Amino acid sequence: MTESLDRYIEVNGRLVDAELKKLLAKKAEEPETIRKAMSYSIFAGGKRLRPILVIAAAECCGARAKDVLKTACALEMIHTYSLIHDDLPAMDDDDLRRGKPTSHKVFGEAMAILAGDGLLTLAFEAAAANAASRKLDGKGAAALVSAIARGAGTQGMVGGQVADLEAENWKGRNHGFKPGPHLEYIHLHKTAALIVASLEAGAILAGGSAKERAALAAYGRAIGLAFQIADDVLDVVGDKKKLGKRGSDADNNKLTYVSLYGVGAAREKARALVAEAHRRLKPFGAKAAPLRALADYVITRDK
Amino acid sequence: MTESLDRYIEVNGRLVDAELKKLLAKKAEEPETIRKAMSYSIFAGGKRLRPILVIAAAECCGARAKDVLKTACALEMIHTYSLIHDDLPAMDDDDLRRGKPTSHKVFGEAMAILAGDGLLTLAFEAAAANAASRKLDGKGAAALVSAIARGAGTQGMVGGQVADLEAENWKGRNHGFKPGPHLEYIHLHKTAALIVASLEAGAILAGGSAKERAALAAYGRAIGLAFQIADDVLDVVGDKKKLGKRGSDADNNKLTYVSLYGVGAAREKARALVAEAHRRLKPFGAKAAPLRALADYVITRDK
Repeated sequence: MTESLDRYIEVNGRLVDAELKKLLAKKAEEPETIRKAMSYSIFAGGKRLRPILVIAAAECCGARAKDVLKTACALEMIHTYSLIHDDLPAMDDDDLRRGKPTSHKVFGEAMAILAGDGLLTLAFEAAAANAASRKLDGKGAAALVSAIARGAGTQGMVGGQVADLEAENWKGRNHGFKPGPHLEYIHLHKTAALIVASLEAGAILAGGSAKERAALAAYGRAIGLAFQIADDVLDVVGDKKKLGKRGSDADNNKLTYVSLYGVGAAREKARALVAEAHRRLKPFGAKAAPLRALADYVITRDK
Repeated sequence: MTESLDRYIEVNGRLVDAELKKLLAKKAEEPETIRKAMSYSIFAGGKRLRPILVIAAAECCGARAKDVLKTACALEMIHTYSLIHDDLPAMDDDDLRRGKPTSHKVFGEAMAILAGDGLLTLAFEAAAANAASRKLDGKGAAALVSAIARGAGTQGMVGGQVADLEAENWKGRNHGFKPGPHLEYIHLHKTAALIVASLEAGAILAGGSAKERAALAAYGRAIGLAFQIADDVLDVVGDKKKLGKRGSDADNNKLTYVSLYGVGAAREKARALVAEAHRRLKPFGAKAAPLRALADYVITRDK
């Protein structure tokens, strides 16, 4: 990561964390436990990528971080809820996330389900408050909520999670889908859709044009997919431990870009996507510097 | 139930079901399974009480059913998601609801969790679309989303579910709360909050005044609480099977209005709440006839 990108993420991440603390402060008529469970996962050390994208997109369209903070937090809440539910025993059954016990390990399964539900709901409340404070008109406010809901719902992230569930052991069964398109579907929806929604939300709050919004969405789609391909490559060439894990992935018939196309072609695909992301940012000139640096980081990172 | 209320519910319920079918129709980029799981629970025979309240409140403020249908459906989606998550093994662990196997019994736990998440998300998309089609201004659109989110979230329904979880075996443990206020908290939040949100949403979409909105919210709070008290009473005096169940509830230390106050005082409390509900409706005159009939039904029903 370049020094200036590092600094950009640090400064804006601090603004986001301060706003998250406000949004998650104990409210009247709210049980203590649920607030604790929600805060536990929100402050478990996330990189705040989606909030940073909301802010960077808004800046491309002439607004500032403070104008979009509540929505930036909304996108982080939705990301966090999806991790809490993903980690549940009925889903991925993970005991640890970022080295800390997962929500259901600390608070129990019932509370973890409700903490996820609470975060998803609070996200829409925060976005609506942001639309009001920015004095968006009715069409803009509806577009903001709708963009977030589409990115998070069955046509977006939830749809990707379903496809991911259905991809397990895909080689051994006839699922009626081709592995290449299916893998792309999973990544475009499970990961890229919420990244696209983050960029769209920033553009809508900043009063960006339909053209600006579309360009930022296309940028998000490209880096979202590139990020996942790079992830698959890192899984194989990252380090020896991961090489070991690769063997077991292969046994598990895990559907990855590397298993489908090989390391070389997967790397090439990621590079082409990052080049496309850069093309989409051209109209924004210097204002898009953070988004450019983020796109490059996606394929140069080593962890 | 009076004949005219019966007819009102039937006619409007049919409108709601037709709109739900549209909203839940297969969309581009959406996996088949999740749509099936969501539809299975939505069309499992609910009474559509919350959608009916959205419509009846809108009519009190001068709008028509067709003006608020998407939001009426949104409230039903939120109610249904809460039932799907409530029925999960980690929560109430119910195999049947309304005589049909619960979502996780049919689709598995992972899909049931995601179906709930998908419905909650789609609800906000539907409400936002309704705000746009009604040409609400930014403040109105934000108020609509916010009212629904508050009713559904940790200050509303989710908060009530948490308190309910924490009330289990309350007698045997020191939870630091008094049983009377705690029971009222559960019912006001687990049930009444989403009823209040339904009425507020109808009023907001119809362009009702702040005064009208507050009156309808107070009506909702009263009938929501009365409904739960009547439920506790029915559990005891309803029929012999339920009397048998009562014994086991008592063994389980279940916190109910009857266990706290006795049948007579509980009935009196429900009657007083329904009287209050009627008072709140006075300003609306004849337009509030369906809401009046609904309030009476709450304490005269026998199942």
